[in-house]
Amino acid sequence: MLPFAITSRDHETAARAGELTTPHGIVRTPAFMPVGTAGTVKGIAAWELARLAPEIVLANTYHLVLRPGVERIERLGGLHRLMGWPGPILTDSGGYQVHSLAARRRVDDDGVTFQSHIDGSAHRLDPENAVDAQIHFGVDIAMVLDECLPFDADAPTVERAERRTVAWAVRGLRRATDRRRQGGWGGGLFAIQQGGADPSLRGRCSQALAEHPFDGFAVGGLAVGEPSQQLHDSVAAFAPLLPAERPRYLMGVGYPEDLLRAVASGVDLFDCVLPTRSARTGKLYTSRGELNIKNTRHADDDRPPDPDCACPTCAHYSRGALRHLYVAREATSVVLLTVHNLSFFLNLMRGAREAIIAGRYSRFRTRVELDRMSEAEEGASADLEG
Amino acid sequence: MLPFAITSRDHETAARAGELTTPHGIVRTPAFMPVGTAGTVKGIAAWELARLAPEIVLANTYHLVLRPGVERIERLGGLHRLMGWPGPILTDSGGYQVHSLAARRRVDDDGVTFQSHIDGSAHRLDPENAVDAQIHFGVDIAMVLDECLPFDADAPTVERAERRTVAWAVRGLRRATDRRRQGGWGGGLFAIQQGGADPSLRGRCSQALAEHPFDGFAVGGLAVGEPSQQLHDSVAAFAPLLPAERPRYLMGVGYPEDLLRAVASGVDLFDCVLPTRSARTGKLYTSRGELNIKNTRHADDDRPPDPDCACPTCAHYSRGALRHLYVAREATSVVLLTVHNLSFFLNLMRGAREAIIAGRYSRFRTRVELDRMSEAEEGASADLEG
Repeated sequence: MLPFAITSRDHETAARAGELTTPHGIVRTPAFMPVGTAGTVKGIAAWELARLAPEIVLANTYHLVLRPGVERIERLGGLHRLMGWPGPILTDSGGYQVHSLAARRRVDDDGVTFQSHIDGSAHRLDPENAVDAQIHFGVDIAMVLDECLPFDADAPTVERAERRTVAWAVRGLRRATDRRRQGGWGGGLFAIQQGGADPSLRGRCSQALAEHPFDGFAVGGLAVGEPSQQLHDSVAAFAPLLPAERPRYLMGVGYPEDLLRAVASGVDLFDCVLPTRSARTGKLYTSRGELNIKNTRHADDDRPPDPDCACPTCAHYSRGALRHLYVAREATSVVLLTVHNLSFFLNLMRGAREAIIAGRYSRFRTRVELDRMSEAEEGASADLEG
Repeated sequence: MLPFAITSRDHETAARAGELTTPHGIVRTPAFMPVGTAGTVKGIAAWELARLAPEIVLANTYHLVLRPGVERIERLGGLHRLMGWPGPILTDSGGYQVHSLAARRRVDDDGVTFQSHIDGSAHRLDPENAVDAQIHFGVDIAMVLDECLPFDADAPTVERAERRTVAWAVRGLRRATDRRRQGGWGGGLFAIQQGGADPSLRGRCSQALAEHPFDGFAVGGLAVGEPSQQLHDSVAAFAPLLPAERPRYLMGVGYPEDLLRAVASGVDLFDCVLPTRSARTGKLYTSRGELNIKNTRHADDDRPPDPDCACPTCAHYSRGALRHLYVAREATSVVLLTVHNLSFFLNLMRGAREAIIAGRYSRFRTRVELDRMSEAEEGASADLEG
């Protein structure tokens, strides 16, 4: 199993700081994983990403299986080489993307058959080949195949998916264990808790998964369209159900305040497309709140986007310059806003970690949340779909 | 006048190495200027550009006048601040873009009236306000307004344009001289030689311009669609007509071999969209010839794009990875190919300069040209329109 040491615990909340050792380096938690869907964080060269110093990066098995494909990635030297990124990589299993992107999806007890959203070609993911693909990629952390549902799925469907997810996780672990025994892969496998909005199902799922030596455990099936309050309540209720001594990963969440809240519930790892996707719609996350850079009010503003940020975008560009580049549809705009947004999310988690270690996490969280109310623009905080 | 010292001369050709001193730094020539049309090299953050270490960068007055506008650029602290680029900047005067992009263009003896290609708004450029705009930008080198023509324009039209260009240059210089006297701007003004394909007109134009204290002189009206041989002959015939003791700038040229040839004719400065525009169509310039990264043959190729290149793209990505990112339409692809192509053009000029200083320019040029034939792909060398 991947070594995981919890090095500090907050006294007021369940927040903790830890160190997860992977084949490509140590991941200091809590940590935010930038999303590199198809083998790159959109618009960001590998060396630029390295300068932002994420602890670990995420890529999507679904996208990579479809293009360039498992065999091609192997021939090109593995996913680290494809991405030009030497640090830790986690891949999801494709379960969520099959659910959200693929056409003609058909789930049965042994896996899921679907058509590519790119060219309509037929594919099948099952608990074993989903793990195999990630092992062929050479990732540091692989995720088990799970069955994702919309948040308003009916109870029998949710229960069936929960049972399948547990069975698939166990099958995936068996495959991963075999592969590790054969040598050549030293990564870890994380299981995923499902169970919809039902705490008892979530509990049952967690207990069943906890009986097996997974390297970590994720909360899945959240941030799928449910109201913000429901998300918060769910995280607070479901994250603590996962084994406390192993890393906990909240998949696909979320806004900066969501992250701080989840850290207080004992979550260690996060991924979300918000900082990268929002960059493409002109939204900047800052210490003073969100900015819509396309607003006319920024046109003549010579100030940096975020006065508290040391990222290269804030060091080199004014708000007015960023607005100009966005309005002129310059590709550079995506690069600059992505660099800033990722810096913000990564620094937020670095700050959270330092605060936990220093025993002042609650004060840190309050300070961040208050500061972020000071300059927030109307309408700038509700575009998850961006 | 901007100080310009010719520090080395080639013994076999008219190639020379020089140093042009501008308010934002010394430009070591021969030099290639990356094109930052609307205030950015497309896809390249300012700090990334700085790492590629160009001597000087070009931006387009036409685009900047239309958006974000002269006054706004001033309010935002000038063009250097807008671009996040602290080094020398040259702007063209807009003459060429009015000719190639604007709608309902009408030229008279006092300037040109046109409609914006962005929103159809009416604008006028004249010899004085074209210089004023560039002074307001705060550029290091401004260009006079010239009248550009297609290469097959009839003789009377060419002659009228040549006369206008000289008259406008003199008017522009008067304005620049006034502004410099008033203080606040220490940049230089370059005149532009026109005259179509007619050597006697080119000669007359050069002589007329040489009577005035311009900081440098450009060859304009080439690379506008004429055949390659005609371009070469024109450069060889027209560049030497410009004053030898001042920097010579060949506008809008060209392929690597064109640059090396023009350097041998005594040209000091170049700009061209090729390295940046070609990047967007998947074309890589390399020491072994051009590559079309979208070709299937690169799909499983783990080698770097250019074995002789030390740019970060070649250090971090395989040909197969670059092909994947291009085929997947990832924005990162443009960034990576642009970084490599600019590195190639900038290194080519650095190599030319070193060779001139070392007294082996002809050998350098022959070596580069032979190497570039070794791996060139069919069809990869004829997409100037890219």
